Amino acid sequence: MSTADYIAEKAAAVQDALHQALPQEWDVPERLREAMLYSLNAGGKRLRPVLVLAAAEAVNGEAEAAGAAMPIACAIEMVHTYSLIHDDLPAMDDDDFRRGKPTNHKVFGEAVAILAGDALLTHAFYCVAQAAKNGRVSAEATLAIVEELARLAGAPGMVGGQTADLLGEQGITTIEELDYIHLHKTSDLIAFSVQAGGRTAGASSSQLEALGIFGRKLGLAFQIQDDILDLVGDEAKLGKKTNSDVEQNKVTYPYLLGMDKSREEVERLTAEAKQAVEEAGFAYPDRLLGIADYLMKRDH
Amino acid sequence: MSTADYIAEKAAAVQDALHQALPQEWDVPERLREAMLYSLNAGGKRLRPVLVLAAAEAVNGEAEAAGAAMPIACAIEMVHTYSLIHDDLPAMDDDDFRRGKPTNHKVFGEAVAILAGDALLTHAFYCVAQAAKNGRVSAEATLAIVEELARLAGAPGMVGGQTADLLGEQGITTIEELDYIHLHKTSDLIAFSVQAGGRTAGASSSQLEALGIFGRKLGLAFQIQDDILDLVGDEAKLGKKTNSDVEQNKVTYPYLLGMDKSREEVERLTAEAKQAVEEAGFAYPDRLLGIADYLMKRDH
Repeated sequence: MSTADYIAEKAAAVQDALHQALPQEWDVPERLREAMLYSLNAGGKRLRPVLVLAAAEAVNGEAEAAGAAMPIACAIEMVHTYSLIHDDLPAMDDDDFRRGKPTNHKVFGEAVAILAGDALLTHAFYCVAQAAKNGRVSAEATLAIVEELARLAGAPGMVGGQTADLLGEQGITTIEELDYIHLHKTSDLIAFSVQAGGRTAGASSSQLEALGIFGRKLGLAFQIQDDILDLVGDEAKLGKKTNSDVEQNKVTYPYLLGMDKSREEVERLTAEAKQAVEEAGFAYPDRLLGIADYLMKRDH
Repeated sequence: MSTADYIAEKAAAVQDALHQALPQEWDVPERLREAMLYSLNAGGKRLRPVLVLAAAEAVNGEAEAAGAAMPIACAIEMVHTYSLIHDDLPAMDDDDFRRGKPTNHKVFGEAVAILAGDALLTHAFYCVAQAAKNGRVSAEATLAIVEELARLAGAPGMVGGQTADLLGEQGITTIEELDYIHLHKTSDLIAFSVQAGGRTAGASSSQLEALGIFGRKLGLAFQIQDDILDLVGDEAKLGKKTNSDVEQNKVTYPYLLGMDKSREEVERLTAEAKQAVEEAGFAYPDRLLGIADYLMKRDH
C-alpha cells in the first residue's frame, strides 16, 4: 500500500472513531453537539491522528497498535479542531471560510463557537482517559499522556505559540522568533501525537525521545512547506487561495531565507527527523518514515 | 475554628498553591501568563477548591488530606476561572466588570482573553495529573478524576449548561428547564469538587456516591440562594448590584416559585445534601457539613 493510501485508510478509521467519540446517550444541548460535530467532520488531512497510529505501529505493529492508540488519535483531532474554531473567531483571525466551508461561528454564532471549542478541548481529555479502559494502556502511561497533552496544547505549547503569533504579527524579524511560533503552534502537537502513540504501544524511553525529535523537526518542516506552498502552490490542489501570507504581510521562512534555502530547510529537517527514528530501533518504522517523505513532497 | 475562618484559611492555602501552579521555568509569552494570573488572582470565594479540601478531610483528616488534594483544588479553580473569562466575553454575557475589577478582555483584549481561558482550561488537566506525583494518589484514581473533570466540565456538564442558558435566555418557562441549566452550569463542578476530593483521600464507592448527591444538591441550593440574594441582598455585602436578574428579564427560582417557596427549597436541598454525607460513614464530616450550613445562611 502506498503512503497516500495508508494515510487515507487510517484517516477513514479515525473518522469512524470520531463518530463514536461523543457518547450518544449524553444529554448535550442539540445545538452544541451540532456545532462540535460540524467542525470535527469538516475534513482535513487528519495528519495528527494518523501520526498517532503510525507511531504506535512503529513500536508493535499495525493490528496490535490500532485499538490502544485510537482514543489518543481522537483526542488530538479534537484539540486541533478546537484550536481552528477559536483561531477563526472575529477577535482572532476573523476567517469566514475554512476548507471551503463557512467557519463555525458563521454557522452557529460566536457564542456557540466559543463554547463548542471549549467543549472539544475538554472532551479531548475524556478521550485520552478512554485509552486505559479494558487494560489496553496502563493508567500510568495514560496519565503521562494527559500531562503531555496539557503541556503541549497549553500555555507553554500550542496556546503560547498562538499568542506569540497574534501579538507578534508584522513585528517578527528573526528566524528565532518565527521558530518559537512554529515550534509551539505546530510542532508541539505533532510531537505530542507521535510520542503519545508510542506510549500507547509501550515505547522505550529512548524511543520516546526519538519520537519527540521526529515530531518537532517534522512539524517545523511541515510549517515551512506550508509557507512555500502558499507562494508557489496550485490553488485548485490546495483548496485555498495562495499568496495569503504576502497579502497579510506575514513574515515567513521564504520571506526571511528565500525560496531555495527554505526548500533546503524542509529537506534537512525531514532527513534529521527520519534519522532519529531510524536509529531508535523500532520494529516497524516504515509507515512513519514514509509519512515524513510524503509530507516533504506534498503539493497540497 | 468557625466555618468562616476555616474557609478563609483554606482559601489562603489555595491562593498560595495557585501561585506555584504555573511553572515559572516554562517559556510562556509574558502577556498570556499575565492574563491567566490576572483572573486567577482576582479573588472570589474559592468555594470549589475549599470543597475539594473539605471532602478529602471528611475521609481521612485534615493534615493527611491537604497535600494530595491540593492539585485538584487548583485544577477546579482554573476551570472555574476560565469559564468566567469566556462567559464575560462580548459574544457571551458582555460584562465589563467582575468582582469590581475590569474583566479579562477589557484589560488584555478579546483575543488574549480567549487564549487565556483556553490555557487555563488546558492547564487544569496538567494540575490534576500532578496529584499522582510522589505516589500521593494512585494513577488509577487520578485518571478517574481526569475523566470526571472532562465530563462534568464539558459538553454534558458545565459547557452544556452554559449553552442551554445562553440559547434559552428569556424562553425558559419551567422549573425543569431551569434545573437543567443550574445542575449543569453550577452543580456539576461542585459535585466534581467533592467527589474528586474524596477520591484523593481514598473514599469508598458509597462515600463517593454520597458526595455526588451532596454536591449536586448543594450546588442547586447555592444557585437558588444566589437568585434570592439578587432580589433581597445588600449591595455593599454582595459587592455587586442587586436586581440584575429582573433588569435582564432572567427567569429565576423566586420568579417561578415565589420567595418563600424558594427559601424552603434552599433549606430542603441543604438538609438532603447533609443527610447524604451524614449517612455515609465519614470519619471527619464536620467541615463539609458546616460549609453546607454556612452557604445556606450566607448574605453575600
